[in-house]
Amino acid sequence: MTEEFEKLEPIRVPELDEILGKPFKVLDDGFIRVVDYMGSDQSVVQAARVSYGKGTKKLRQDRGLIRYLMRHKHTTPFEMCEIKFHIRIPMDAWRQWIRHRTANVNEYSTRYSIAIDSAQTTKPDEWRMQSKNNKQGSAGFFDTETGEKLTEEERRLQKLARETYQKRIDLGVAREQARKDLPLSTYTEAYWKIDLHNLLHFLRLRMEKNAQLEIRKYAEIIGHQIVSKWVPFTWEAFLDYEMNAQKFSAIELEVIKNLIADKIDDALQIADNAGWLKEKEGKLLKNLERMEMEEKLEMLGIKKPW
Amino acid sequence: MTEEFEKLEPIRVPELDEILGKPFKVLDDGFIRVVDYMGSDQSVVQAARVSYGKGTKKLRQDRGLIRYLMRHKHTTPFEMCEIKFHIRIPMDAWRQWIRHRTANVNEYSTRYSIAIDSAQTTKPDEWRMQSKNNKQGSAGFFDTETGEKLTEEERRLQKLARETYQKRIDLGVAREQARKDLPLSTYTEAYWKIDLHNLLHFLRLRMEKNAQLEIRKYAEIIGHQIVSKWVPFTWEAFLDYEMNAQKFSAIELEVIKNLIADKIDDALQIADNAGWLKEKEGKLLKNLERMEMEEKLEMLGIKKPW
Amino acid sequence: MTEEFEKLEPIRVPELDEILGKPFKVLDDGFIRVVDYMGSDQSVVQAARVSYGKGTKKLRQDRGLIRYLMRHKHTTPFEMCEIKFHIRIPMDAWRQWIRHRTANVNEYSTRYSIAIDSAQTTKPDEWRMQSKNNKQGSAGFFDTETGEKLTEEERRLQKLARETYQKRIDLGVAREQARKDLPLSTYTEAYWKIDLHNLLHFLRLRMEKNAQLEIRKYAEIIGHQIVSKWVPFTWEAFLDYEMNAQKFSAIELEVIKNLIADKIDDALQIADNAGWLKEKEGKLLKNLERMEMEEKLEMLGIKKPW
Amino acid sequence: MTEEFEKLEPIRVPELDEILGKPFKVLDDGFIRVVDYMGSDQSVVQAARVSYGKGTKKLRQDRGLIRYLMRHKHTTPFEMCEIKFHIRIPMDAWRQWIRHRTANVNEYSTRYSIAIDSAQTTKPDEWRMQSKNNKQGSAGFFDTETGEKLTEEERRLQKLARETYQKRIDLGVAREQARKDLPLSTYTEAYWKIDLHNLLHFLRLRMEKNAQLEIRKYAEIIGHQIVSKWVPFTWEAFLDYEMNAQKFSAIELEVIKNLIADKIDDALQIADNAGWLKEKEGKLLKNLERMEMEEKLEMLGIKKPW
Repeated sequence: MTEEFEKLEPIRVPELDEILGKPFKVLDDGFIRVVDYMGSDQSVVQAARVSYGKGTKKLRQDRGLIRYLMRHKHTTPFEMCEIKFHIRIPMDAWRQWIRHRTANVNEYSTRYSIAIDSAQTTKPDEWRMQSKNNKQGSAGFFDTETGEKLTEEERRLQKLARETYQKRIDLGVAREQARKDLPLSTYTEAYWKIDLHNLLHFLRLRMEKNAQLEIRKYAEIIGHQIVSKWVPFTWEAFLDYEMNAQKFSAIELEVIKNLIADKIDDALQIADNAGWLKEKEGKLLKNLERMEMEEKLEMLGIKKPW
Repeated sequence: MTEEFEKLEPIRVPELDEILGKPFKVLDDGFIRVVDYMGSDQSVVQAARVSYGKGTKKLRQDRGLIRYLMRHKHTTPFEMCEIKFHIRIPMDAWRQWIRHRTANVNEYSTRYSIAIDSAQTTKPDEWRMQSKNNKQGSAGFFDTETGEKLTEEERRLQKLARETYQKRIDLGVAREQARKDLPLSTYTEAYWKIDLHNLLHFLRLRMEKNAQLEIRKYAEIIGHQIVSKWVPFTWEAFLDYEMNAQKFSAIELEVIKNLIADKIDDALQIADNAGWLKEKEGKLLKNLERMEMEEKLEMLGIKKPW
Repeated sequence: MTEEFEKLEPIRVPELDEILGKPFKVLDDGFIRVVDYMGSDQSVVQAARVSYGKGTKKLRQDRGLIRYLMRHKHTTPFEMCEIKFHIRIPMDAWRQWIRHRTANVNEYSTRYSIAIDSAQTTKPDEWRMQSKNNKQGSAGFFDTETGEKLTEEERRLQKLARETYQKRIDLGVAREQARKDLPLSTYTEAYWKIDLHNLLHFLRLRMEKNAQLEIRKYAEIIGHQIVSKWVPFTWEAFLDYEMNAQKFSAIELEVIKNLIADKIDDALQIADNAGWLKEKEGKLLKNLERMEMEEKLEMLGIKKPW
Repeated sequence: MTEEFEKLEPIRVPELDEILGKPFKVLDDGFIRVVDYMGSDQSVVQAARVSYGKGTKKLRQDRGLIRYLMRHKHTTPFEMCEIKFHIRIPMDAWRQWIRHRTANVNEYSTRYSIAIDSAQTTKPDEWRMQSKNNKQGSAGFFDTETGEKLTEEERRLQKLARETYQKRIDLGVAREQARKDLPLSTYTEAYWKIDLHNLLHFLRLRMEKNAQLEIRKYAEIIGHQIVSKWVPFTWEAFLDYEMNAQKFSAIELEVIKNLIADKIDDALQIADNAGWLKEKEGKLLKNLERMEMEEKLEMLGIKKPW
């Protein structure tokens, strides 16, 4: 053996140990809580350094190294941390959640046990209107009167669904079949274990403003209440380089460069070549790529040239 | 370059090409169809031979090689074949299906589009009773009279659920929220793509007698109608070495050896050491390990010694 | 919230904490040590019980539940435990190791740092002969005289390889290119993190008698020195139901049943149908399936009928 | 069944069929060739449309949809295409390649067969110097005289390595052990199968200017010669939105916005808060984050304010 190792102590993060097992309430009857975890910011650094060898130990500070890894998408050191949650969530949101495949899951089985007697309910002021711009989004809320009607109908449907389920169970219908008409709003529970890299990927997608509200509420608690305590350097780097970063395509970069250099005609030419400036009866046609460019120009404080 | 390669032709399996795109009906309103595929038994052989080198080409016949790979769990050559399905399935069964993580999926989005207007219905003679022995299984059917009542209640619940959904949509509730109380029996559609090794793993679990009837019906069509045509040697080897094979634990092997050698006392001693023979008031206590051993002994035609 | 949760304490296994960080020596200059872990037998049980619901808590003892899960391949609860190793291993063995894809890895980078100055050496009595029966195995050792010659040649080659590498480095050749002719015996180091289910899968393949000796030595330490301490119930179940179990194919089962029932002719007929009894000049031809059956019959103490 | 499906024809891409099986030469004795594939740009569109439902069919053109998916990281439709390569590559480059885990692999086995008798050689003008700025990169080439010496030493080492291997084999040393001192430059072969999404991820990392030259040569052929023919819309979108795009962190965006608005002091303040402007003896200290910002400012044609 070429070197001596000292006996190791388990790596613990006191800020996270403090909330171990504590449920954070989500939605009307859901929760999420940390059941166990492994590693810390320090484990990310340790893993990176086995790659980089020993000479580098003094060269960089831990925070700088973590930011470097995040910035350059050196993702494997972040896989060295692992966390396990206990979640209670409506099946509808769980259907989205489970699409993240690189995780370990044990879900409550309604073949084996009676379904959890709780379905997500909607308060009169929580009914959301279909977004016009975003085919898969919502925008704004209904007035109270409409909301009350909707809530009342929800209550009636959920009641009938539960009664029907209970009748089947009482009659002796197999649980695996009795559950078939439970509403998607029915709560389920699961243990969910994932490494830090894949968790951040989940958060980037599910904390995003276009993510569905229900799952976003879980994601925000995971991010702001849990990950921020667990691995504060990683969390900061993630916000800076992923969550709040902005990507510009090759075409967008060309347009911006020309606008900054005051070469308006060149910028227009590039935009036109990209098909952004097609008109009909003197008006620009709707073009998603151009519209997203416009948002970015506005964000940068650059006037759009078309 | 050390060798010359001939231009390759795409590998096609005429028996599978014949049913490409053809939907197999499943349940009352579901289907499964092959949309595309890549590879054949021949691709498994080809991949195995890159591992084994060229000298082996003549030594083994293809069928023998495929059986060898299956028997010894050399699974990577089976990953060289890929198949893509289009599936229509109730969300409840889909919830189980999606737990198989090593696959590619695109599912119909009820955030983006109106939910499919179809829910799985149950005929009066299809209501299953809860199994007493298997906590997660069913056993036997209800009589027609009870079945008719259950079917009528199912109809009423599904009708109210759909009306409630439709009202929400008509009012302008966001699709992502309107769907929240749809019953689990609502049909969804998806493209599902998977390699042959992982597909066989799926089939071993889902064609098994304890798998839930609904998903089993899909699995049986995939196995018997599709995989058997696609890769006949692989399918035969799978049935022989996986589906219809039987595993014996270290303890079970010891018991059987002793029984075959007529050393009844030794067999009993081993069983007792394993905790199988605990009694209460002169009767053997329920013990799952012993009960499974008894089934295997019966299958082999060996009398149980206790 | 429907229930109250107590604050949780981290789950620790004292027997494993005791060896945390301690390197186990492997080969001439390799090692393996546990750097961190998460979970225990208790976590497997906990995860299984979220699936089975609360009613089952008293029904089964933990050991029995773990054995049930292992026996019936309910693998997801075992994924709830995670372990991280620090390994030092020759690149040749690492090439096999890394083929297990469901794991997290950070390897020492010889692009970034000077290659580790150590290559696996072979003592004169450690040179193995090519197996005749197993194309990918070894059988027996060379005599000392031959061994000494081989060891001397190994020394000479490794010396030239290292000198050539060092000269390149001294001249300023890029590390990423200088390393190109390092021998596969060169040691590398890595952090390797994996869940318990996938670790057991690794052990089943790499502790097996046909696994290459070098990797088997690492696997045996992981199994017997580490996993056995970490999750003793799981380890016992794994040995019984996986490592030391035996699988019989559908055809093998038919042959055995008939032999036990003394229906020799029927057994012979089945074997013949399976193509096992082809002869040439009065002698049975070599047939792998039949030969493996013969081993199993001998193990069970049943006389082969052909 | 609610709809009728037509029988499908296999999806073929004539431009790719034309080069099916044709080896592209790489390095001195390597190659890569497409053995089989499944899907096309059309399959990406088809998969996206099952998610979005039928109403969208006419709304978007295929190219626009593919660009939208790429831009918004809707990656699952790209997983619906699959491609299989046959590769011949030095083990050293293969060690990097194999780190991409989401792929299927069958590699030539040197336990089972004699190692391929070819090692990557370096021409006198191909020896690269260690980069000063990039610890894991190279920069510039050696003069011919030095190069010739290095090549001669390479030749001598590779010759001794092969002779030693051959002697072991001739003596009857087990192949699994005889190979232990083969140089990393030894060629290996493999079948490698991967879906389009993961292939693009591989290309983004391995076509990048900091990737090692050897693997980059394979990646460039895959990208420019193969993927560009196979899925031209996807390839174009990938170049625009991934390969040639540029990401700006939250801090970088703030600095740029202020510089565009001519608020130099604010920009300096933000940079200082980020720790970019630490000085020692009147000179800015080396700071990677600032230096990367400077490159981006230069690319945009914005003068750095510090």
